[in-house]
Amino acid sequence: MPLILITNDDGYQAAGIQALTRAVASLGEVYVVAPDGPRSGAACAITATVPVTYREIHAHPDYPAGVHLFACSGTPVDCVKLAWDNILPRTPDLLLSGINHGDNASISVHYSGTMGAVFEGCMKDIPSIGLSLYLQRGQRYEDHPVCTAALDAITKLCQRVIAEGLPQDVCLNINFPVANSFRGWQVCRQARGRWTAEWATATNPHGLNAYWLTGKFTDLEPEATDTDFSALRAGYASIVPTTIDMTAHRFFEELSSLVISH
Amino acid sequence: MPLILITNDDGYQAAGIQALTRAVASLGEVYVVAPDGPRSGAACAITATVPVTYREIHAHPDYPAGVHLFACSGTPVDCVKLAWDNILPRTPDLLLSGINHGDNASISVHYSGTMGAVFEGCMKDIPSIGLSLYLQRGQRYEDHPVCTAALDAITKLCQRVIAEGLPQDVCLNINFPVANSFRGWQVCRQARGRWTAEWATATNPHGLNAYWLTGKFTDLEPEATDTDFSALRAGYASIVPTTIDMTAHRFFEELSSLVISH
Repeated sequence: MPLILITNDDGYQAAGIQALTRAVASLGEVYVVAPDGPRSGAACAITATVPVTYREIHAHPDYPAGVHLFACSGTPVDCVKLAWDNILPRTPDLLLSGINHGDNASISVHYSGTMGAVFEGCMKDIPSIGLSLYLQRGQRYEDHPVCTAALDAITKLCQRVIAEGLPQDVCLNINFPVANSFRGWQVCRQARGRWTAEWATATNPHGLNAYWLTGKFTDLEPEATDTDFSALRAGYASIVPTTIDMTAHRFFEELSSLVISH
Repeated sequence: MPLILITNDDGYQAAGIQALTRAVASLGEVYVVAPDGPRSGAACAITATVPVTYREIHAHPDYPAGVHLFACSGTPVDCVKLAWDNILPRTPDLLLSGINHGDNASISVHYSGTMGAVFEGCMKDIPSIGLSLYLQRGQRYEDHPVCTAALDAITKLCQRVIAEGLPQDVCLNINFPVANSFRGWQVCRQARGRWTAEWATATNPHGLNAYWLTGKFTDLEPEATDTDFSALRAGYASIVPTTIDMTAHRFFEELSSLVISH
């Protein structure tokens, strides 16, 4: 029976991970090892300075019977590392992370704890998929959940990935639009984007320079038709094949000339 | 006059960032905006749930006169975002992060707060370079600092990057071996690697499942001659051209067939 590891960065109480777990519970033996609370923006962070703890939660009403559920004090990456080393009976056949409450398209892939867990799985040669829902500011997952048809498409995709695997060092970054039906997948590339106006002054009684992170995202390729954001705008679920090899292979020659003087 | 932003993930009190600042202080106007303490393993994490604060530090004895020094409560990425939005007079001509006390070669690029700051700079179209020292376990930067000749090489490289820039979406991940002389640069790719045995049981009085993150790194390509680790083993400083576009462009066709049934 296939072994499936599920995690996220919103914590095990989030609606998204519960919907995802229900969607794939029939495909194999499922372990959920997820943070004990929100870890948005955790990226690939690891907990280096304090110990990490975890505990098993039995018979949680929002999870299917038979699912092994663990809550962890660490980051999403810690969850994957702990599961792999200490909790799972063997290397899983599939790692899923999400469904995130908010998109991880374009450069948000770098900040995403959802995708951090996916990269960790990919580093361990586990076929790994991140799933996120593109909400507008102010929208809540609870009011705009991933629809049943999209959840069915996730189930089918997971079956194929369990059967066929993914290429070495490649994982999937999937984002869904808010929609009542599933229009289909679009394989695409990461859009170029930029966050600006990222800080709001925090009023505080101590006279500190204190700021809340916020910001406005700009798609720098609004005319493109092959990016994750163009797919989402057209109502499709975007799939970006994503690699943990960050080498810019195309720029070897150019950069060799930069240091040739030595 | 060129504007240079310097940060790190070990905090502004670390020997590595102070050595780096001294090495490039003559090249332009220098702002150091660094964490107020260690943030190892912070990756691209951002501070989403509490405000971030910063303060200016005047006339610090370990920094050259004229350097603008700021200590920040956030992550390395927060430091770059705060500097860009709130502290710097304009977009800098160069971002440096490091010199990290410990390497960021191979897959450690994903966990690295040093490189997180570099990716953030790259997202903002700032020519950005991460610098790290490959220490063996138990070695301290203070006992094995980057040698004077290597610091001179850094100064020269920074001059060239200020003058010529870097390709769009490309930054540099540089690692130095511990050495008394500078043998030269080697432009190379990110080695495949793996961390295993990553948790040590934490003795504790509360009966929790508590674990310290540790681990053993294995270079999965020990025979390669074109990776960052092969360069370091041969005594060279490794330069990996690194891209923030994580799309696995080579796998589009393969992945299109995965979802074609839809």
